[in-house]
Amino acid sequence: MAVPADGSTQVSAVFRMPCTVQWGDCDPAGIIWYPAYYRWMDAATWAMFAQVGFTAKRIRSDNVSLPLVHSECRYERSPTFGDTCTVLSCIAHWGSKSFSVKHIFMAADGGTLAQGQETRVWCSYESGPGSPLRGVVIPDSLKALFAAPL
Amino acid sequence: MAVPADGSTQVSAVFRMPCTVQWGDCDPAGIIWYPAYYRWMDAATWAMFAQVGFTAKRIRSDNVSLPLVHSECRYERSPTFGDTCTVLSCIAHWGSKSFSVKHIFMAADGGTLAQGQETRVWCSYESGPGSPLRGVVIPDSLKALFAAPL
Amino acid sequence: MAVPADGSTQVSAVFRMPCTVQWGDCDPAGIIWYPAYYRWMDAATWAMFAQVGFTAKRIRSDNVSLPLVHSECRYERSPTFGDTCTVLSCIAHWGSKSFSVKHIFMAADGGTLAQGQETRVWCSYESGPGSPLRGVVIPDSLKALFAAPL
Amino acid sequence: MAVPADGSTQVSAVFRMPCTVQWGDCDPAGIIWYPAYYRWMDAATWAMFAQVGFTAKRIRSDNVSLPLVHSECRYERSPTFGDTCTVLSCIAHWGSKSFSVKHIFMAADGGTLAQGQETRVWCSYESGPGSPLRGVVIPDSLKALFAAPL
Repeated sequence: MAVPADGSTQVSAVFRMPCTVQWGDCDPAGIIWYPAYYRWMDAATWAMFAQVGFTAKRIRSDNVSLPLVHSECRYERSPTFGDTCTVLSCIAHWGSKSFSVKHIFMAADGGTLAQGQETRVWCSYESGPGSPLRGVVIPDSLKALFAAPL
Repeated sequence: MAVPADGSTQVSAVFRMPCTVQWGDCDPAGIIWYPAYYRWMDAATWAMFAQVGFTAKRIRSDNVSLPLVHSECRYERSPTFGDTCTVLSCIAHWGSKSFSVKHIFMAADGGTLAQGQETRVWCSYESGPGSPLRGVVIPDSLKALFAAPL
Repeated sequence: MAVPADGSTQVSAVFRMPCTVQWGDCDPAGIIWYPAYYRWMDAATWAMFAQVGFTAKRIRSDNVSLPLVHSECRYERSPTFGDTCTVLSCIAHWGSKSFSVKHIFMAADGGTLAQGQETRVWCSYESGPGSPLRGVVIPDSLKALFAAPL
Repeated sequence: MAVPADGSTQVSAVFRMPCTVQWGDCDPAGIIWYPAYYRWMDAATWAMFAQVGFTAKRIRSDNVSLPLVHSECRYERSPTFGDTCTVLSCIAHWGSKSFSVKHIFMAADGGTLAQGQETRVWCSYESGPGSPLRGVVIPDSLKALFAAPL
């Protein structure tokens, strides 16, 4: 991922997740139905955490959840059924208790399909899944895990 | 709901849930993408329980979950974007710890779109959401709630 | 819908769509999984068009599609399984070939759950569903349909 | 895939598709929400056709669609967020215009999670996507493509 054209910086390594536009991801216009991009962003963020050691198992044992404050996506080109693409994800910003993840959706030919961003809060459950969530200060040790090039 | 043509019986009142085929429920063929029927079946089963008093709140406080053993659906006619339909649901069978729910999807003109069935187990969590589930004998008082015509 | 707190204006009547947070809309944290909001926004936009006369049938016969340029959502409070809410939607901006729809997700108690916006292009297919889409100037007669209070 | 324990035969090679249980595939019980299995079955069937040469591109140029007559799934063990699995798919039966696809969902440890089946009709559009579909006799040359071991 090059430095984004919009001038924003990236403060982590870049992670990659392949994905394929399935028949059921498309609408009657024959192109991707846009909520699919958000499903992929969510999966890409969890995959990024898993790659630095925060696997699903650890997320559960640490009672962590990552609720969203904001999400957005800009659509440039619409893929269709059977197209393969790659989600490039990186941390765009670390706040005290929140962080932003930038996602670029790249077509097989290297062109950009869409660009999205999620802002999430680092939270833990008060007492296990289903109980209330509260924001927690993101440890520097966590941030450091994302800095290393993969 | 008349007695089903396949000769199966119904052992409960019949519940109704309206639904609309959304743009995103359809595929590039312009008709409903079949997993949507299973989303509706699941929603119709929860709605049926809510109507007899097992609301989401009570389901949570009672630590109940309803995992599936089997599901199926037979498709007769494909609705398309914008079509409204009605899900007619009833208990088809009460077992000791499991039960079957029959769902008939009816078009606005009264014709049948599809017919499905779910077999589920009445379970409770050992210790709250996320913990293991175990089957529980379905109380006769629960079964009685479904018998009354609505 | 009051004038939005962010100072943006609304240039149309306000439309309402009820929705319910289903079991399958929620994630292991027990709250709504955020892509559900985008499914609702899409459905609310189509419902708004249907209410002013652009029903699914007319959308098809007129060869119209409404692809997105951008979408976003800000999350304030997370509903959970069984919660009912209302989507309030209005046109926030009419451009020449594009337009923005603002959506406010309101809880049963009147509080705001989330606020989203979609920017779409008014397009027609070159030759039926599946063929390429091209932007078309939005007719004033279409804009006028949204102005009338409902 | 061994000969299925239920005695059914397989009349084609076996195809494999890896999948991962995403956060958004799970429900408040923390386990897979069952409609996800049907999304995977649909994707596995299309992937199987692509592997024998019926890619999305050819499906479109040949005006083919594969609507369902029936689908079902039996659930044995529930995977959870982060679990990887494999879908093993084969043709269970070739009819004149219809065919059945058997899908076995295998956990990383080799155990069976679920077993499903889809019955579909080999159809072509009368005049492109969105137009009515009619069943077509499945050519022997198509059936032959699936017989070869991969």
